[in-house]
Amino acid sequence: MTANPGNAPISRTDIEAAAHRIGGYVRRTPVIALEEGAFGLPAALFLKLESLQHAGSFKARGAFNALLSARESSRGIPAAGVIAASGGNHGAAVAYAAQALGLHAEIFVPQIASPAKVQRLRDFGAEIRQTGATYAEALAAAQVRQAETGALSVHAYDEVAVLAGQGTLAREFEAQIADLDTVLVAVGGGGLIGGIAAWHADAKQGALTPGHTRIIGVEPMNCPTLHAALSARAPVDVEVGGIAADSLGAKRVGNLMFEIARRAIDRSVLVEDEAIRATQRLLWRDLRLAVETGGATALAALVAGAYKPRIGERIGVVICGGNADLAHIG
Amino acid sequence: MTANPGNAPISRTDIEAAAHRIGGYVRRTPVIALEEGAFGLPAALFLKLESLQHAGSFKARGAFNALLSARESSRGIPAAGVIAASGGNHGAAVAYAAQALGLHAEIFVPQIASPAKVQRLRDFGAEIRQTGATYAEALAAAQVRQAETGALSVHAYDEVAVLAGQGTLAREFEAQIADLDTVLVAVGGGGLIGGIAAWHADAKQGALTPGHTRIIGVEPMNCPTLHAALSARAPVDVEVGGIAADSLGAKRVGNLMFEIARRAIDRSVLVEDEAIRATQRLLWRDLRLAVETGGATALAALVAGAYKPRIGERIGVVICGGNADLAHIG
Repeated sequence: MTANPGNAPISRTDIEAAAHRIGGYVRRTPVIALEEGAFGLPAALFLKLESLQHAGSFKARGAFNALLSARESSRGIPAAGVIAASGGNHGAAVAYAAQALGLHAEIFVPQIASPAKVQRLRDFGAEIRQTGATYAEALAAAQVRQAETGALSVHAYDEVAVLAGQGTLAREFEAQIADLDTVLVAVGGGGLIGGIAAWHADAKQGALTPGHTRIIGVEPMNCPTLHAALSARAPVDVEVGGIAADSLGAKRVGNLMFEIARRAIDRSVLVEDEAIRATQRLLWRDLRLAVETGGATALAALVAGAYKPRIGERIGVVICGGNADLAHIG
Repeated sequence: MTANPGNAPISRTDIEAAAHRIGGYVRRTPVIALEEGAFGLPAALFLKLESLQHAGSFKARGAFNALLSARESSRGIPAAGVIAASGGNHGAAVAYAAQALGLHAEIFVPQIASPAKVQRLRDFGAEIRQTGATYAEALAAAQVRQAETGALSVHAYDEVAVLAGQGTLAREFEAQIADLDTVLVAVGGGGLIGGIAAWHADAKQGALTPGHTRIIGVEPMNCPTLHAALSARAPVDVEVGGIAADSLGAKRVGNLMFEIARRAIDRSVLVEDEAIRATQRLLWRDLRLAVETGGATALAALVAGAYKPRIGERIGVVICGGNADLAHIG
């Protein structure tokens, strides 16, 4: 990673470098332009189908960038391999990336992780430790273990290489669809929106300001970590729960992303769990896209009216994950 | 439709005209380029995600072209509206298109059509007649009814406007991905592959010959209509059944498509039902794409080795429908 002047934890240059680094390992996910009036909205909607990414979510971008950056560094990757804690998608991405790069992976997941996701981690060749009631407890256990083994720890969101990797989604989306007025992104720990906002922000002498494209965070009412952080002017712990906690249930946003968020994210809007479920079913009904609740959350802000577009507004919506429990959709 | 010299039932000009006619009504469906070695194959695979089309399959293209062509013609669309017989996807597309154009639709479906598909037809505002054990019996009933009401009949595949509409998929795919060596397409009644082959064929004084891009039909062993027709040198009735009969179970290929097929389709390869199911599950596991059995059939030819690519071959695979029963996938 190059050094960044001032307060911005990552720059467009870091994201460019990440894109070149991970290009051979991640998918360029397609975008579908929806028809006028789709979902009863007056806007022009462009869905970025990141649910088709390796391991089923955008997390593959950050995971590959973290592992490849470490491998390129003088320290390299320790003999013990890599270690991560994750409610599911980050763990799957780290396991997938480790397998692709021939590395051993040990993944800590909380008890709320679905059996299907845990099995998937095993299918990617990872060693699984299922422990703790929450993401935070699984993370604490992973930290203890990491101190023992010396494995390379990959954080789910609060890490420069991870943020820069997730930011490559914005670079790719921009190359596919020019002149987006707005991008809607679901927020858990904030790695994805942090990377996206860093790509779109203007940086003058290191001081970030919002760029041409407005970045809007979307969070479940039951997991309002960014909303709470923006109100408190600092990352704070919040209670998390509800139907999207499995993928968006980080207890607080990352410190690094918050430095970007407070300067370059327009706002965070909240949606009810019912709206997320309804949107998940709508994506299946109208597009035959089966996505996880977290993957439906950004669009839910439009469907439920939490974000009201103006007529003709060009809105990019990140469908960030596809690791759905199909029993809830069909 | 413009007149076609010689034997070709439709020309590239017809497909161009269809594309302009239906452009405002159908989705430009995205393509995903898969990574080297995907599914253990040495080829470069490009999946055309037509499962994201309106009403969940490519059939929307032919349906809109048929209805819009009729509306443009001097005869217009009868007061009784439109009538169709379909195992599911064609009916859904006609119902969807009729609703979009403000027309009444009466749809005949056989008993084997899934309850979910029948409900979907109702959701699209169509009047449903569920009758007959097979597609052919439903079609016969629809023909009787059409004679009574004078409604505009839209055939599922054996009709010039339908073929030209389906052919727009090939035009769009070619614009998205240049220089495909091969396109793999599932075959039921043959409307889609007929339209695709007509787009890619060379036509010299109306005599079709294979073009630069090789067109390969893929059929379930249990629904080998094109295979049987190519062997017999004419469309012939075959027994149809198995897990993809719902979407690919036409009893014989169309006469129009056969004129194209015998000149411009390389061959038809057959796949076992087990390979189709395995491929359907693979698409979910590796891409988080939930597609119907018919939508997985073209790719199954690669996965099962019925079509063996050469190293580096650029292969387009049409994922033609997404109207899946999710209970069979997750």
